[in-house]
Amino acid sequence: MLNPLVRVVAVVAPPPSLGDNTGDLDRLKKMLAPHLAGMLPMVPYPRLSKVAERFRAAGFSGTAIINDMMGSPVLVDFLPQLPPVLAGMALDLGTTHLEATLLDLSTGKVLARADLENGQIGFGADILTRIHHAARPEGLVELHRAIIVSVNELAAKLAGISGLAVAEIRALSVSGNTSMVHFFLNINPYHLCREPYIPMVNAPDPCLAGELKLAIHPAAVVWILPSVGSYFGGDLISGVLASGIDRQQETCMLIDVGTNAEVIVGNREWLIACAGAAGPALEGGVARMGMRAGPGAIEHVRIDPDTGEIQYETIGNTKPKGLCGSGLIDLVAELYLTRQIDIRGKFRPQAAGDRLVQGNDGWQFVVVSSEDSADGQPVVLGQVDLDALMRSKAAMYAILTTLTNQVGVAFAELHRIYVAGAFGRHISPRQAVVLGMLPDLPLAIYEPVGNSSLAGAERILLERPARERCLELVKKITYIELNVNHEFMLRFSGSRFIPHTDHALFPSVPFFDGE
Amino acid sequence: MLNPLVRVVAVVAPPPSLGDNTGDLDRLKKMLAPHLAGMLPMVPYPRLSKVAERFRAAGFSGTAIINDMMGSPVLVDFLPQLPPVLAGMALDLGTTHLEATLLDLSTGKVLARADLENGQIGFGADILTRIHHAARPEGLVELHRAIIVSVNELAAKLAGISGLAVAEIRALSVSGNTSMVHFFLNINPYHLCREPYIPMVNAPDPCLAGELKLAIHPAAVVWILPSVGSYFGGDLISGVLASGIDRQQETCMLIDVGTNAEVIVGNREWLIACAGAAGPALEGGVARMGMRAGPGAIEHVRIDPDTGEIQYETIGNTKPKGLCGSGLIDLVAELYLTRQIDIRGKFRPQAAGDRLVQGNDGWQFVVVSSEDSADGQPVVLGQVDLDALMRSKAAMYAILTTLTNQVGVAFAELHRIYVAGAFGRHISPRQAVVLGMLPDLPLAIYEPVGNSSLAGAERILLERPARERCLELVKKITYIELNVNHEFMLRFSGSRFIPHTDHALFPSVPFFDGE
Repeated sequence: MLNPLVRVVAVVAPPPSLGDNTGDLDRLKKMLAPHLAGMLPMVPYPRLSKVAERFRAAGFSGTAIINDMMGSPVLVDFLPQLPPVLAGMALDLGTTHLEATLLDLSTGKVLARADLENGQIGFGADILTRIHHAARPEGLVELHRAIIVSVNELAAKLAGISGLAVAEIRALSVSGNTSMVHFFLNINPYHLCREPYIPMVNAPDPCLAGELKLAIHPAAVVWILPSVGSYFGGDLISGVLASGIDRQQETCMLIDVGTNAEVIVGNREWLIACAGAAGPALEGGVARMGMRAGPGAIEHVRIDPDTGEIQYETIGNTKPKGLCGSGLIDLVAELYLTRQIDIRGKFRPQAAGDRLVQGNDGWQFVVVSSEDSADGQPVVLGQVDLDALMRSKAAMYAILTTLTNQVGVAFAELHRIYVAGAFGRHISPRQAVVLGMLPDLPLAIYEPVGNSSLAGAERILLERPARERCLELVKKITYIELNVNHEFMLRFSGSRFIPHTDHALFPSVPFFDGE
Repeated sequence: MLNPLVRVVAVVAPPPSLGDNTGDLDRLKKMLAPHLAGMLPMVPYPRLSKVAERFRAAGFSGTAIINDMMGSPVLVDFLPQLPPVLAGMALDLGTTHLEATLLDLSTGKVLARADLENGQIGFGADILTRIHHAARPEGLVELHRAIIVSVNELAAKLAGISGLAVAEIRALSVSGNTSMVHFFLNINPYHLCREPYIPMVNAPDPCLAGELKLAIHPAAVVWILPSVGSYFGGDLISGVLASGIDRQQETCMLIDVGTNAEVIVGNREWLIACAGAAGPALEGGVARMGMRAGPGAIEHVRIDPDTGEIQYETIGNTKPKGLCGSGLIDLVAELYLTRQIDIRGKFRPQAAGDRLVQGNDGWQFVVVSSEDSADGQPVVLGQVDLDALMRSKAAMYAILTTLTNQVGVAFAELHRIYVAGAFGRHISPRQAVVLGMLPDLPLAIYEPVGNSSLAGAERILLERPARERCLELVKKITYIELNVNHEFMLRFSGSRFIPHTDHALFPSVPFFDGE
C-alpha cells in the first residue's frame, strides 16, 4: 500500500440543494474527510478558487488531488476524471549533475529517467565558488534561477519521454547536498562554509511548486530531504533510507563518495556521521575525462600485467566517451598494480608503454585512442587527474579512520559497508581497496548501492513512513565536524600514498616500495 | 488568559557551535516547541528566509511571532525585542460601511476605532448589483481591489490613531456577509444569488495578509468568520458569539437588521436560522438621509402629540447630519402615533403640519431645518424612504414569523430576543414594536447588542475557543432558505401595514383604521 506525497481521492458528492446549502468547498472537504482519517483538508488560499470552481464544473464528482504535508492533508486540485497517471518526480540535485526519475505514484512504476548537467556550473564548478558567488549582489538569485531552469529542463525531459505534459507532474521530492538545497530554495548559503558551518535550515517544510516558480504543476508538493549539517545533506539521508543502516542490529557503515565524502556508521540504536571534501576527482564532469555513469562511460578497466593491453566495458556497450568514477578507480588501481604509477600516484615513464605521452599539462595516459572513441577525442588520464584522485582517496580513507576511531569501532567489527555514489553504478570495492580508499576487508562486506540519493528521493515520493523516518533520522544522527578536526588532517597526510604509508593496514595489497 | 490569533514567544537560544550544528530555523523551532504544546511550528516558504535571517541577526535571542492557524502554530517572523505592542485588527466588513477596532492582543485593550464607507459603492449600492458586476470581464477583480483598498485605508486610519505603522498590525479578523467575504477573497459570487444559493466556501482556511495584498504586515494571519449560507454570513456568526445564544438553556432569538434581516432562534441544543432581504432602508448611507451611527446621527426622536414639536438626540450631541437606523425607526413610529402617516405608511397631508412639503419625489417631512442642521442641508424623510422602510419592516416581521412557525415556537415562549445591527447603537424595541417590525412582547425581553459583527471579530482576534466555536456553529446551525419560501411571501404581504393587517397580533399598539 503506497502512501505517496500526493494522492487522488474519487468523490461523488450530492449536489447542493435548498435543503443542503453547504458551500462548494466545504461540501468537498466533508466528502474527503472519511478518506483522510477524519481530517478536513486545508486549502491554501492560492488554490481555493480553482478547487471550488473545478469541483462545481465537474458536477460535484470527480477526483480530488491531496498533498500530504507532513501528515496534514492539503487539498490542491479537483479533476473531472481520474487522471490517467499521477506522476511524481524524484530528483537527485547534484552539484554537477541532476538525475531524476518520473514515477507513477499509484503503482510505483518508473515512467522515465533522465539526467542533466547542473546549470549552475557556469557560476563555479565547485560548491565553494558558488557560495562565494552567492554573496555578490544578485549572486544568490542568479544561482537560484539557474538551478530552477535546470530542474525545469529536466522535468520537461521526463515529461517528453513519458508522453505527459510537464504540468502533469504533481509532486517533487528533492535529495541534494545542503548547499544545493539552499540554492534551490533561494536562501543564503553564507554560513555553510564558515565555522561553525550552520545551515539556514535543515528540514524545510514542504511547499508548493508554484512558490518556487517550477514548471511542474503549480500545486505540486515539493518535499525536500532534510540535512544533518552543512556537509551532510539530504542526499545522505537518502542513502540511509536506501541502505536501511538505521534498522540494522549490527553496526554497519555507509559511504557516499562524490565531491564530498560522507560517511555514517551505526545501527538501529545510534548513528554517527561525518563528511569532508573529497575533491572533485570522482564527480563526473569535473575531471577532464570524467563523466557520469551514462552510455559511453567506461565503468570497468582491466590492464593485462604482461602485455599492457587494456580491456574496458562501457555502459550501454557503446564506443567510449570518458571514464565514470568506477572506471577511474579501476584504471588507477590497475596502473598501480602494473607499476605504471608509483605509490605517490605519479606516472612512471620508465615503466609505462607508448600509451604515456606528453600533453600540455604534463604526462597523460591514453586509455582509448581517438580512432576507437565515440567522438574522435582520445580518452586520457592526465597527471592532474591522478593528483586529484589521490587527494580524494586520501580524504576518504582519512574520514573513515577518523570516524571509526571517534566511535571506537574497528573496521573489522563492521557487519556491512554500503558504498553509494552517483558517480558509478558498480564501484569495484577491490580496486578501491587497492588504492587505499576503502579499508582492506573481505569483499563480501562491501555492498554497492548505486545512486542512493535518487533511490531515497523515490521512496520519499511513494512512502509516508519514509518521510517520517527522514525527520527522525535528522534527530538521531550525531554529526562530527571534520573541517576543524586535527586528527583528520594528520590521517589525511598518511593516506596520500597507495595504498597507505602504513602498509600493514592493507595486507592484501602488493606494496612497491622505494621506487 | 488570552489565546490571540497571533502571539509572541520570547526565545533565548544557545548559539550554534561545532558541537551543536543544528540549522538556524530548526534551532528556533526546537526552542519554540515547549511553548506550543510540544508542536514544531510550520514555516511557510515565503517566510523561511526572513525568519531564519532575523533570528541569526538578533543573536539567536528575541521574540518569535507565531500565527495560530486553526490550532497549528505557524512561525512567521522573528524580532530582536519584544514589540512594544502586538496589534490586531477586528473588521466588520459591511456592504455599505466598514467598521474596525485595533486591539492590543496581549491585553485586549482597544487601541483605536474607525470606520469608512465601503469603496465598492461605486459599483453598486446593494450587493446584488455588485454580484452582477462581478460577472463582467474584470468585474470581480475591480470589486476585490476596491474592498482591499478600503480595508487598507481603514487599517491606515487605525494605525494613525494609535501611533503605529500599518505594518505593525499582525492579525486581521473579518466578519462580513457571505458576498462581501467572496469579494474580499476574490472568489466568484455568481451562485450566491441563484437558486439554490450556494457559497463557493463557507469556512475559508486562514491565510496570510500578503496573499491578499493587504497593507498590514504581510505575514499577518487573516481569519475570516465562516458563513452558514449565502444570506447568512460570518457577521451573524459573530452575533451568535457576542450574544451567547448558543449557550443558553432557554430558547432565545437573535435578530440582526441591516440590508438583510438575519434571524436565528434556538438554544444550546439546537439553532435554526433564516435570512431575507430587508431592503436598504435601515442601512445607513443608502436611504437619502440615512447614515451610520456616528457623530451627528439622530439616534432618537420624539414628537409631542399635542404640539407636533420634535425632540431628537444626536450621537456626540452635535448638530444633526442625518438619521441612523434607530432614529429612523423612532421617527416613523412617532409619525404613526401622531397620525401623520397612515397604516400603509403613507403621509397624511391633512394631519401633518407645515413640516410636510412637496419635494421632487413627492412629499417629504422636514425633521431638521437647514438652519439647525450640521451642514446647511435639511434632514428630511421622503415618501420614498418611508416606502423602503415599510418593505424592510414587513420583511423583518415575515421572517420572524416564518421561522418561529417552522420550528413550532411561539414568540411568547422566547426567553430573550437579542437585537443586533450596526445601523443603530440603541435601537428602541418599543418603537420597532409600534411599527410591527418586532413582535409585541414585554420590552424586558429585548436586549440590544449593538454591532455584534464587530464584537464577534474582536473575540476571534483574542480567544481561541471563540475561533473553535465558530466552526462548530456552522455545523450546528440549520439554515432555512427563504428566497423560495411561499409562506414567507404570504406573511410578507400581511406585514406591509402598521403594525399589521392582523392587529390582534399587536394589542399594545394603537390601531387607526379606515383613514
